[in-house]
Amino acid sequence: MPATAPVVLSIDAMGGDHGLQTTVDAALLALAEHEGLQLVLVGDESLVEAALKARKPAALLRARIAVQHAAEVVGMDEAPSKALRNKKDSSLRVAINLVRDGRAQAVVSAGNTGALMATAKFVLKTLPGIDRPAIISPIPSMSGHVHMLDLGANAECSAEQLFQFAVMGSALVTAIHGIERPRVALLNIGEEEIKGNEVIKQTAHLLQASQLNYIGFVEGDGVFLRDIDVVVCDGFTGNIALKTGEGVAKLIYHYIKQEFTRSAFTKLAALAAMPALKALGKRMDPRNYNGASLVGLNGIVIKSHGSADALAFAAAIRVAVREVQHDVPARISRLLAVALPQLPKAASGEA
Amino acid sequence: MPATAPVVLSIDAMGGDHGLQTTVDAALLALAEHEGLQLVLVGDESLVEAALKARKPAALLRARIAVQHAAEVVGMDEAPSKALRNKKDSSLRVAINLVRDGRAQAVVSAGNTGALMATAKFVLKTLPGIDRPAIISPIPSMSGHVHMLDLGANAECSAEQLFQFAVMGSALVTAIHGIERPRVALLNIGEEEIKGNEVIKQTAHLLQASQLNYIGFVEGDGVFLRDIDVVVCDGFTGNIALKTGEGVAKLIYHYIKQEFTRSAFTKLAALAAMPALKALGKRMDPRNYNGASLVGLNGIVIKSHGSADALAFAAAIRVAVREVQHDVPARISRLLAVALPQLPKAASGEA
Repeated sequence: MPATAPVVLSIDAMGGDHGLQTTVDAALLALAEHEGLQLVLVGDESLVEAALKARKPAALLRARIAVQHAAEVVGMDEAPSKALRNKKDSSLRVAINLVRDGRAQAVVSAGNTGALMATAKFVLKTLPGIDRPAIISPIPSMSGHVHMLDLGANAECSAEQLFQFAVMGSALVTAIHGIERPRVALLNIGEEEIKGNEVIKQTAHLLQASQLNYIGFVEGDGVFLRDIDVVVCDGFTGNIALKTGEGVAKLIYHYIKQEFTRSAFTKLAALAAMPALKALGKRMDPRNYNGASLVGLNGIVIKSHGSADALAFAAAIRVAVREVQHDVPARISRLLAVALPQLPKAASGEA
Repeated sequence: MPATAPVVLSIDAMGGDHGLQTTVDAALLALAEHEGLQLVLVGDESLVEAALKARKPAALLRARIAVQHAAEVVGMDEAPSKALRNKKDSSLRVAINLVRDGRAQAVVSAGNTGALMATAKFVLKTLPGIDRPAIISPIPSMSGHVHMLDLGANAECSAEQLFQFAVMGSALVTAIHGIERPRVALLNIGEEEIKGNEVIKQTAHLLQASQLNYIGFVEGDGVFLRDIDVVVCDGFTGNIALKTGEGVAKLIYHYIKQEFTRSAFTKLAALAAMPALKALGKRMDPRNYNGASLVGLNGIVIKSHGSADALAFAAAIRVAVREVQHDVPARISRLLAVALPQLPKAASGEA
């Protein structure tokens, strides 16, 4: 990052399963990594100060940290609507307020996903032309990675909303990865045009009539095996696909462990195979992909996995830095203005 | 199988990607495995006879094979409705007819899934009280395996249909695996009661009020990691989950290969690790799970993967034998009669 472009992020220091010390440690890691970065740690002031002191940061590094007091914490299992209504002084809410007030360019939280989404939508509002924000994240694939959305924010979606997701995904991939015309596919249960429900067929028509680089349907296995940049689906399907993938990866990891500890011989073989197995474990480690974006908002909001350790949370901060540097919300607005189908009604009715 | 209970199956000899010789080879494998088994191979008579002759089967084995002529073949990509309307003398249709006419107790096909489903539904009809058949298959999980349905027959389902799927899955698991009260879970995007769409919430109410052993929601990862017997979902979600799992498994297999061929050292390590890697490959091999059941029909219909080789197709024949021996359709009807919620209307409206 050039020193001329400082980035200021607000961090929900109290969110996540591992608590304050983890987010503080992640903040220190991120500051060491990015020269122009400044962080506002939001949470109980005395607790945050104590967690900082425990790590004795260098003065130059400490100078790039501000602490913003917030008296409340949103529980990981708290109902989003209740958190939104009752916890106006939560670290999550105050951290988002800083973005609304222009005091930070993005917010990072490992807190309650539903509460983060509901609060961010309420405080920041969606971008003009976007009905609902969506959750997007890169996931590993044969060709490197693919960005998938929505991963769970909207259980049911209209064709128009799915189309907006395609725009948001394309804009983000172009902004962050410099891919000019990202290949967009629609998740479906077959690749033939006749497959899928009405919403999916309508979305396909909208995408075909649009300026986006729509390449057709993709099946569940194709997400990981084909060369695609953006996969679009509703939040129910996306969440099932994402978690199914996590489950299968854990199951295979379990199989590997079982097979390599089956006998004295396989245990010896495991020693020989350790470098390869370690490299494999690293590639399968979901922490490398930590940091999902809540796109479609009037501001940048990054969700870290609740179980993130300091390294993983630092990865989520890295995602926020990148999105600030490439001004993702503005890119979405710009693409939305030109991507809309020329004849949306004819396209969805007759094409 | 005791010699006292002969099992007669009809085999769609022409279905599948690999053609006739593969199904004939599978038939010979299955006959060698099951003493009391008799098979009717359905397809072009002269071609089937030629494929049989090519393998020179022993006379005693050959005596347990009948050939039923069928002049047409349903293409793997043919529209199911067209196949149903126009191909009345297809191997797929004639093989199903044999079950309707009592000349076979079950049918096995590696042909076009949609055509098999549509034709089986048309010819055999659904069981009383079942609106639509579903596709069920065991999939590997941490506890051994879990049966999941629907895997793609019905993209959209009502709560009543999902409830029927739960009954069908429970009856099948009890019949085949002797588990008296199979644990049934509903696939959802969270485990809290407030999660999911209206259909899923209604289904949960029906299941709670039923005699089934309903244990609540399961997320995508839990399918593979938790101890569950039957996972219920609509065919869209089930197909996405199944194929996502296949995609991730293939991706990880690709990673393993890459890591173990990265250098001369890792290649040597791979040699040492070969027994463990082979055992792993065997456990991940989807052929071990070949043979999905189309349940809810007035007859037993087993779908083999289109790409099945002879070993895999023989596994599908094994599934058919087991379902005949345990009379799965009758078990479904019996469970349906007692499992229905006592107060379905109150349960779905007010619970």
